[in-house]
Amino acid sequence: MTGSATLYIFPLAGVLGMAFTLYLACITLRHDEGPPEIIEFSRYIRQGAATFLRREYGMMAVAAVVFAAFLLVTLQIYTTLTFIVGALTSVLAGYIGMSIATRANGRTTFAARAGTTRALDVAFSGGAVLGMAAVSLGILGVSSIYLIFSLLRVVPNPLEVLTGYSIGASFAAIFARVGGGIYTKAADIGADLVGKVEVGIPEDDPRNPAVIADNVGDNVGDVAGMGADTYQAYVDTTIAALILGASATTVVGAPLGDKGVVFPLWVLLAGMMGSMAGIMGVKLLARDEGADPGKLLRLGMLISGAVTLLAILGLSHYYLQDLRAFLATALGLVSGVVIGLLTDYYTSGRPVERIAASGESGAATLLISGISVGMESATAPMVILGLSMIAAYKVWGIYGISLSGVGLLSILGITLSMDAYGPIADNAGGIAEMSHQHPSIRRITDRLDAAGNTTAAIAKAFAVSATAAAALSLLTAYSEAVMVDSLDIRDARVMAGLVIGGALPALVSSMTLNAVGRTAGLMVEEVRRQFREIAGLREGRVPPDYQRCIDIATRGALGQLLLPCLVGVASPFAIVFTLGREALGGFIAGNLITGIFLALFMANAGGAWDNAKKLIETGAHGGERSVAHMASVVGDTVGDPLKDTSGPTLNILVELVAAVSLAFVPLFLRVVP
Amino acid sequence: MTGSATLYIFPLAGVLGMAFTLYLACITLRHDEGPPEIIEFSRYIRQGAATFLRREYGMMAVAAVVFAAFLLVTLQIYTTLTFIVGALTSVLAGYIGMSIATRANGRTTFAARAGTTRALDVAFSGGAVLGMAAVSLGILGVSSIYLIFSLLRVVPNPLEVLTGYSIGASFAAIFARVGGGIYTKAADIGADLVGKVEVGIPEDDPRNPAVIADNVGDNVGDVAGMGADTYQAYVDTTIAALILGASATTVVGAPLGDKGVVFPLWVLLAGMMGSMAGIMGVKLLARDEGADPGKLLRLGMLISGAVTLLAILGLSHYYLQDLRAFLATALGLVSGVVIGLLTDYYTSGRPVERIAASGESGAATLLISGISVGMESATAPMVILGLSMIAAYKVWGIYGISLSGVGLLSILGITLSMDAYGPIADNAGGIAEMSHQHPSIRRITDRLDAAGNTTAAIAKAFAVSATAAAALSLLTAYSEAVMVDSLDIRDARVMAGLVIGGALPALVSSMTLNAVGRTAGLMVEEVRRQFREIAGLREGRVPPDYQRCIDIATRGALGQLLLPCLVGVASPFAIVFTLGREALGGFIAGNLITGIFLALFMANAGGAWDNAKKLIETGAHGGERSVAHMASVVGDTVGDPLKDTSGPTLNILVELVAAVSLAFVPLFLRVVP
Repeated sequence: MTGSATLYIFPLAGVLGMAFTLYLACITLRHDEGPPEIIEFSRYIRQGAATFLRREYGMMAVAAVVFAAFLLVTLQIYTTLTFIVGALTSVLAGYIGMSIATRANGRTTFAARAGTTRALDVAFSGGAVLGMAAVSLGILGVSSIYLIFSLLRVVPNPLEVLTGYSIGASFAAIFARVGGGIYTKAADIGADLVGKVEVGIPEDDPRNPAVIADNVGDNVGDVAGMGADTYQAYVDTTIAALILGASATTVVGAPLGDKGVVFPLWVLLAGMMGSMAGIMGVKLLARDEGADPGKLLRLGMLISGAVTLLAILGLSHYYLQDLRAFLATALGLVSGVVIGLLTDYYTSGRPVERIAASGESGAATLLISGISVGMESATAPMVILGLSMIAAYKVWGIYGISLSGVGLLSILGITLSMDAYGPIADNAGGIAEMSHQHPSIRRITDRLDAAGNTTAAIAKAFAVSATAAAALSLLTAYSEAVMVDSLDIRDARVMAGLVIGGALPALVSSMTLNAVGRTAGLMVEEVRRQFREIAGLREGRVPPDYQRCIDIATRGALGQLLLPCLVGVASPFAIVFTLGREALGGFIAGNLITGIFLALFMANAGGAWDNAKKLIETGAHGGERSVAHMASVVGDTVGDPLKDTSGPTLNILVELVAAVSLAFVPLFLRVVP
Repeated sequence: MTGSATLYIFPLAGVLGMAFTLYLACITLRHDEGPPEIIEFSRYIRQGAATFLRREYGMMAVAAVVFAAFLLVTLQIYTTLTFIVGALTSVLAGYIGMSIATRANGRTTFAARAGTTRALDVAFSGGAVLGMAAVSLGILGVSSIYLIFSLLRVVPNPLEVLTGYSIGASFAAIFARVGGGIYTKAADIGADLVGKVEVGIPEDDPRNPAVIADNVGDNVGDVAGMGADTYQAYVDTTIAALILGASATTVVGAPLGDKGVVFPLWVLLAGMMGSMAGIMGVKLLARDEGADPGKLLRLGMLISGAVTLLAILGLSHYYLQDLRAFLATALGLVSGVVIGLLTDYYTSGRPVERIAASGESGAATLLISGISVGMESATAPMVILGLSMIAAYKVWGIYGISLSGVGLLSILGITLSMDAYGPIADNAGGIAEMSHQHPSIRRITDRLDAAGNTTAAIAKAFAVSATAAAALSLLTAYSEAVMVDSLDIRDARVMAGLVIGGALPALVSSMTLNAVGRTAGLMVEEVRRQFREIAGLREGRVPPDYQRCIDIATRGALGQLLLPCLVGVASPFAIVFTLGREALGGFIAGNLITGIFLALFMANAGGAWDNAKKLIETGAHGGERSVAHMASVVGDTVGDPLKDTSGPTLNILVELVAAVSLAFVPLFLRVVP
């Protein structure tokens, strides 16, 4: 098979994946919407999410047009076009995922009347729409552009224009993550601080004016935001691997030719098939009513991993005829799974019990022990990342490192499905509460939700590892392309870049934390005002004004998302034009190190505090309303913006900086001495 | 003047500095000890501190003997000897400082009867003993060893054995900092959580069983620990500068000869003279009763800086005949001062008001805004460090970088004096409270204490900048010595080292935070027990059992200091023997980046929370016992171990790793391929 003929396979596979996505969407929508009260709350949430996303995308469009003009002037028309396509596909994946998720939530609530497995099937199928949409669009977009520019021959190297696609995806992602992250946590904190702490009503109580905004936030943050986040990691890693694969055909020694270049796409194809197998596996096994949802989801991940590994083994042996490809890819996949399991331990194992116990002496000691657990939990993943990088390099040089990154991301289809399943189950519980369903319904959705918390933590760790892999590949691609003699840390410029780059994640985190804090403050005031001024609200006779809370979250997020995004996009230019190309290499690496550390710390500390609160609410250490419980509410609230706003933003920041640097290498070579 | 004759000047200057230290000690001890009740509490504190330090030094001695044996086997007898001298001088400086500080506290209380300036004079003279002892011993030790080995000619290069001195100082420092840090914060948190929060008695109330332990902690942590911390930064920077100066004589191009090698020592001499001028300036100006203590201390720092800069200008022009030396040195000194002023802003300016205001919606929002301020505050110093590194390199290559580091540390004499003044003023206030002095006395000591808080923040930022400067110099010296072709971040081993090194500060911080948490928990239980079981304690009729609390802090600190110290010392060996010499270069750099970031974040977030609490206690946002006040107590307690235990430990960790790596280069060259 010639290289050119092979290239048609991948866009076709992408279309196949989209067809599977459509099938999942149809399955989800075929379920009954339920009675009017469920439909009503589901519609509130859907409309709030759609309104916010449209306005967020509108702002992003303006910024994207400005940036595209800049690209057009400084680089070339084709890179500009791929930038636009990259941003659009990211938006499309997120929007599809969100549309189905906000239709699956009420259907899950209603399906729970027929039992756990029926509800699990709806929620998981809904979540899988996001997972498969992101993966299919990723493969479709990257491979189509590669094919088209290979055929057109308008540019010397079709890979060069793909860097535009990469920044398009990162550009869309940082807007979606920052905007969604501010929205979701401002609403969540506002709802909790007044509703649960001051007024003393349960979570998701319909009397709480911020409750709809909170549920909207889950969709715009954890569905659309998470989708855009992992979409860019997927796309970035693939593009970096293609670029490194092209140079590896000469570097590695073995004459791989086009087979080596397109092998990463074969790995993604294997992963997509594996993910589909895993998704169908979960759906089939879910027919057994006694099955434990958490176990089922983990089993799905194992099925996907096993199928993917087998397929890659076959591809390595028969197609590439070099088992080093299998070794390097498997290394990435396995280290991703191990990091996921470690995260599971830190966010739901013994460390959580330790945090909960320390709550007995109050909030301060609970916070200190959570910070300590978060710090410790970041250590092992970083060591694993470092070791697997060396191992992959030993297996097959730089090509091995990029293959290991692709291997890690290959099963994104299933991990992202598991992740998007979480907010659907969460929403379903909220709707059950708001629409006054029978308590047995809420118990079922709670079970689904609990399973979602664990899988979300695993998926989040996957996202951070994927970020590290993607950024490393991009950094390697940048330093190959930028034509500097060395990026030696003995060079003062490289070292200065490292130190300054290490400060960037701190600056951006500070901005996003502030934005959440400010918006949550306004939300607290509004919720307090409604409880004070609306007579009969507290007794449940008069409904609250949900829309005003939605407006506050929307305005807060839209008004404050621009600055952190701009800082991320502009920082590589600021460095390269003042300190040079060597300093930018150091800057990318410094940003990577602090960024990965903070992302892991924030995700795990936040997750551990969340679960410590849940543990205490089951009756441990005095249970509800005890000293430990009040302390754990403080810990959970502090952890919220860390794990759902600032932490995930860092994933994107790390890659955005690397992707922008790589894409603008032609400009830097022209104007920076 | 020949190079050899010049070499006699520095040990003589060190002896002169010790004479000045003795003079300051005599001045302090000449003041009246006061009435028996003051003497009694001062003696409690002194005995507690001395007992703890002796036991801590005992443990350190055992570890040092083991390590010395390892040095003897793997390196050589002379490096082993200088290691021992380095550790001993560090201990000596800390012990002298602590002895005088624990004698100055009661004297300051008594002197306050004669007015603010008299008390300021006692406290400042007492603090200056530590500052001058550290500086004099540093100059004396380094220059004597250099002179002796130059004369003896038993080793080809006298600079090689100086690396032993450097690890000796770092080794002693990490024991002193970790031990002192655990002690002081466990006692502080224990005293506050039960005394202030549960029982509702004021700070330093003699009924609180942990109050003496708390005051002992100030001395073992903030005097002896801080002294050892900055002593190692001083020594490390000097030794790295001497090593780099020696290679610069050939590299830089200008034939500097011996003058270039010893120029860093001249800079330190200028800084010592400048510090002495500043100290005498404060003492003279303090005779005016109306003077503001804070202004006086800052003025003293400015005098020192100006005198030092002038002297360095003269040395550059007349001795070295190259003004680039002045430029590079001044760059370090000025960036240190700017970072200090920025820290002052973040820990006492508008950001603190923002934190205090966010306390109105409770502890969670106060913590989020404090984390945000801490993150933001770490950004600018890191950018300044990066830029000044490039500027110094542009001025005079690697030699410029090492001179800028020496410039920054040159005025350590005055900054450390200002820092050690703080705990003396704090102790004086405690003794005034415990011995029931007239409230006017407490008002005066409170004024002194407030001035000390600001200067302590400035001095802490100085210490972090000094760490960065020292570690950079050591890293450069390591990479020059270790004979690898490149430390390119495109090399997978270097990059893996960077990522793994970035995890080390997180691991060690987690250990120290845990140690504080556990020991504070035991302290809380003991204080609760005494209030419960000792009849008449709450009413003040029966004294508490101070000794048991001192024992808990002592045992907690001694039992938990070994592990983090071992991890720090052993990590370079673990990396180099598994991943090689290139990876160790990356490891040092990664450890530096996360270490500096976390040290700045922890110091500033902690300082800002502390001052937000103080601001609220002056009546802002509802004042004492308001929602904001309770929130700020939580924030302060969380910040305590961050700013006084984990953060400062990272300074030493960053340097220890670099110093150990540098010293063992001969071993690595022999056994690591």
